[in-house]
Amino acid sequence: MTNIDSALEFYFDFSSPYGYLASEKIDLLAQKFGRKVKWRPILLGIIFRETGAVPLTQAPLKGEYSLHDFARSARYLGVPYAHPRRFPVATQHAARTYYWLHDQDCARARAFAHAAYRAFFVDGQDISDLTVVLDLASRQGADYDALSEALAGPAIKARLKAECEAAIAIGVFGSPYILVDGEPFFGSDRLPQIELWLEKGGF
Amino acid sequence: MTNIDSALEFYFDFSSPYGYLASEKIDLLAQKFGRKVKWRPILLGIIFRETGAVPLTQAPLKGEYSLHDFARSARYLGVPYAHPRRFPVATQHAARTYYWLHDQDCARARAFAHAAYRAFFVDGQDISDLTVVLDLASRQGADYDALSEALAGPAIKARLKAECEAAIAIGVFGSPYILVDGEPFFGSDRLPQIELWLEKGGF
Repeated sequence: MTNIDSALEFYFDFSSPYGYLASEKIDLLAQKFGRKVKWRPILLGIIFRETGAVPLTQAPLKGEYSLHDFARSARYLGVPYAHPRRFPVATQHAARTYYWLHDQDCARARAFAHAAYRAFFVDGQDISDLTVVLDLASRQGADYDALSEALAGPAIKARLKAECEAAIAIGVFGSPYILVDGEPFFGSDRLPQIELWLEKGGF
Repeated sequence: MTNIDSALEFYFDFSSPYGYLASEKIDLLAQKFGRKVKWRPILLGIIFRETGAVPLTQAPLKGEYSLHDFARSARYLGVPYAHPRRFPVATQHAARTYYWLHDQDCARARAFAHAAYRAFFVDGQDISDLTVVLDLASRQGADYDALSEALAGPAIKARLKAECEAAIAIGVFGSPYILVDGEPFFGSDRLPQIELWLEKGGF
């Protein structure tokens, strides 16, 4: 039985091209069926340490194709995309900022997530840079100094670590990884299957 | 410029679930736009030796998901699917048989390819078994003894090796890998992009 009140869970890394593509579509798709989405940034670096996977762009032959596919898939979905010069990058500052904001204001956290993804995949900003992340967050209304202090402390680090471990525990191995009533979907190319699943309550 | 006379090239391994799903769709899709498809079986074993990739089902976490996704993607596409008990299997007999048939009769080779895929992914037959392959081919009208002799000889082995090397040389790293006027698409989940590409001559 589908519980139509439960939110979709959207796991992603801020350096993941297909995660970015999904981020531009998932809320509207869920909304169409009266559903909400919980965004959960994770670090692929930690997950890949567990699974032994390598970043897609570093895989022989597949790497070159993937660069081509990122841009083509973005055009297919009508989403702006410019592959970042430095890629992949470390995204712990962005992910921690998301959770810090989220504990205060869900909407601001969501707006920051969109801003960070677009800064990286459209405007070519280096979101591994702490000051870039602080600027992006403060432009969404975050308190620069409070956030800066929080990011330097142990609590938010422990929080992100716990989120990553919880994600691995339920089987998250890549980005985007989307749960719909417990049903896992991996990849932005599964959005059409997610749509059918939402429409029919499974298939 | 799109050359509407040129055939799509469909690279696949007979033990590839997503290759099988694509095989059930690609000809009709191409036909819709007045195009033909060249089927080119290859051996992922040889390609993975080159790229260092591992079979999807053996990847930590991703492996378990993939088994779930094979079946769900089949339902999504309306294609019958039963995951084979032995998987993956060696497919050199099936691939060599395809090329041997193809040199005599394209249509018979195509019919054999469908029969071999369905034998493995629907009926649970072990297509790594030479006698199973010989039976499948003879049911498509192949001369059992002539094929049996050919499969034991060096010519057809060299032929498949050359096909695999040529595939690697143009960047084929997995199955299915489909070229449309030189544009590469990887995965059965790229069929909608292929459709748009055929419709618009690129996007």
